[in-house]
Amino acid sequence: MFDLEKLLERIEPLNEAVMAKTQARLDDLTKPRGSLGVMESIAKKIAGITGKVIPSISKKTCILMAGDHGVTEEGVSAYPREVTAQMVLNFLEGGAAMSVLTRHVGAELVVVDVGVNADFADNHFLWNKKVAYGTMNMCKGPAMTPEQTFKALEVGFETVSNCLDEGSELIGIGEMGIGNTTSSAALLSVFSGASPQEITGRGTGVDDERLKLKIGAIEKALKVNSPNASNPLETLTKVGGLEIAGLTGVILGCAARRVPVVLDGFISGAAALVATHMNPYVKDYLLASHLSEECGHKLMLEILGVVPILHMNMRLGEGTGAALVINIIEAALKILKEMATFSGAGIDGPTA
Amino acid sequence: MFDLEKLLERIEPLNEAVMAKTQARLDDLTKPRGSLGVMESIAKKIAGITGKVIPSISKKTCILMAGDHGVTEEGVSAYPREVTAQMVLNFLEGGAAMSVLTRHVGAELVVVDVGVNADFADNHFLWNKKVAYGTMNMCKGPAMTPEQTFKALEVGFETVSNCLDEGSELIGIGEMGIGNTTSSAALLSVFSGASPQEITGRGTGVDDERLKLKIGAIEKALKVNSPNASNPLETLTKVGGLEIAGLTGVILGCAARRVPVVLDGFISGAAALVATHMNPYVKDYLLASHLSEECGHKLMLEILGVVPILHMNMRLGEGTGAALVINIIEAALKILKEMATFSGAGIDGPTA
Repeated sequence: MFDLEKLLERIEPLNEAVMAKTQARLDDLTKPRGSLGVMESIAKKIAGITGKVIPSISKKTCILMAGDHGVTEEGVSAYPREVTAQMVLNFLEGGAAMSVLTRHVGAELVVVDVGVNADFADNHFLWNKKVAYGTMNMCKGPAMTPEQTFKALEVGFETVSNCLDEGSELIGIGEMGIGNTTSSAALLSVFSGASPQEITGRGTGVDDERLKLKIGAIEKALKVNSPNASNPLETLTKVGGLEIAGLTGVILGCAARRVPVVLDGFISGAAALVATHMNPYVKDYLLASHLSEECGHKLMLEILGVVPILHMNMRLGEGTGAALVINIIEAALKILKEMATFSGAGIDGPTA
Repeated sequence: MFDLEKLLERIEPLNEAVMAKTQARLDDLTKPRGSLGVMESIAKKIAGITGKVIPSISKKTCILMAGDHGVTEEGVSAYPREVTAQMVLNFLEGGAAMSVLTRHVGAELVVVDVGVNADFADNHFLWNKKVAYGTMNMCKGPAMTPEQTFKALEVGFETVSNCLDEGSELIGIGEMGIGNTTSSAALLSVFSGASPQEITGRGTGVDDERLKLKIGAIEKALKVNSPNASNPLETLTKVGGLEIAGLTGVILGCAARRVPVVLDGFISGAAALVATHMNPYVKDYLLASHLSEECGHKLMLEILGVVPILHMNMRLGEGTGAALVINIIEAALKILKEMATFSGAGIDGPTA
């Protein structure tokens, strides 16, 4: 039986003693101190997460949670709801951007149906963990029942536990769900205090008219449900989504097992907002990937306390940013492991 | 015989017809139009450079030019001049950051001695093309003779020609030269019109006192030599460096052969400034990698018209940023080549 309270209790701070040793090694490598910037911070953070002075990563997995959103009936998205299911098939057939990028970086791609409004034929690459055929329209009441939220969290936790049991040492997260930037903006509004007007973006590309509808829908959902940041679980139930809850479960599972988890864009960040509000130590386990085009993403990453590495004006989701940055994370660990030291290479340090 | 004028004449604009076809394909891939942002621009630019609608890159080479700087006698660097030669040995032994990163991305590393103040034993991995044992002190007169500049440009052109003849389809550039952020800031000052005060940074990490010395040295060099932006070759001779001239030759060689060239940080950008002032079409062949810590780098990239992808507060040089971004460039080309199309995958487009 999934015990959320126990899971949250298992999440602890970084290992400072190990990080100090890693820092000492970084400072002895043949480069000016700190000159590799974020590369060095990444290596040190993963040392603190894993408890290994010189960590390495062999198997990498990207977990992509898919779910539909009742709020699409408000006309908040440029794409019809059916695209969620169509894209799931595209992932399975290897033709989506995320399929290409996970192949490129040598990561396994796990696609989970946690709430798509369609039935799929059995497929070796699809994890069928459907909790419901999509959420309810949050403009008319809570998007989920408390039981659905709990079940979706459990799906995320079980999925990631399985991946970690099979040897994954780095988890990237992504999603597919037409309408999910609307839910994510609602979550950001609750946790940041910013108005929907300020932090709602164009998602995959709505025009001015639909953007107005989208902001209006979020305002309505917040009014109807009155979510409260001090109760993250209830907030998730009221204005979240099945795939967002699933990703929250993945993040909590990573933090509890001391495995780094790579965020993608706005939706995975919304899941991280929920997780960090359940236990603030979760922040220590997050690695950012890119700064997306979505206007609220910058504020979201600031609240999460992570710095995006890639600035590529991307707004696709799926986990594409997370996949791209995996190669850079691996590079950071190789820098720590493979570079020569000043003492070993006979190179002069700075003059006094 | 190396003919600079003929080389410059060979550099032509991008192939717009091919780029239009590439854009049409990008728009048919199973993602909202433009949603992969800079990934799509990279793919399109390389199509325009190579003249192939769906280009691919097999062999990648990073060319690292090393040279010493007479201006170090003004106390402008935190490290002694000897470190240039020591680091060359470190590259050859595979222990430098650039060694690790080129291995990581599967790129060949070519190290060229174009002006180091030391003699090296024969080494299969070192290209001995020494023009001089470092530049002269630009605070007292021109850093190089016109003949030295010309020879260093030739070294760069010959090196890259050799790499391209051997099958390289993407060139990254980097450098090693204690004192070379000082020369690069002098070049940026000439080509931007900004004062040394505004655009001189801390290089690999000088303190406030040395920063003052560095700015003072640049001001003196500009006063003594009066370089003029309208004569880029003479400017390079007066306040440049042997490795900077070498990289300028590499960039011109890439543009003439229609091969994309990936910039690293401040010094490779200074070489690109010289090259683009010799022929403005050169801009079309440049790909940026990262935004470095060096304070003038942002302005430099704006002048070059390229957008940095990685924001990692790096300030090491060597080509480390260029190497890191190669994996992302390859990802962009795989997106173009391997993703499914809307028509092929049976996925709905946006609703009208």
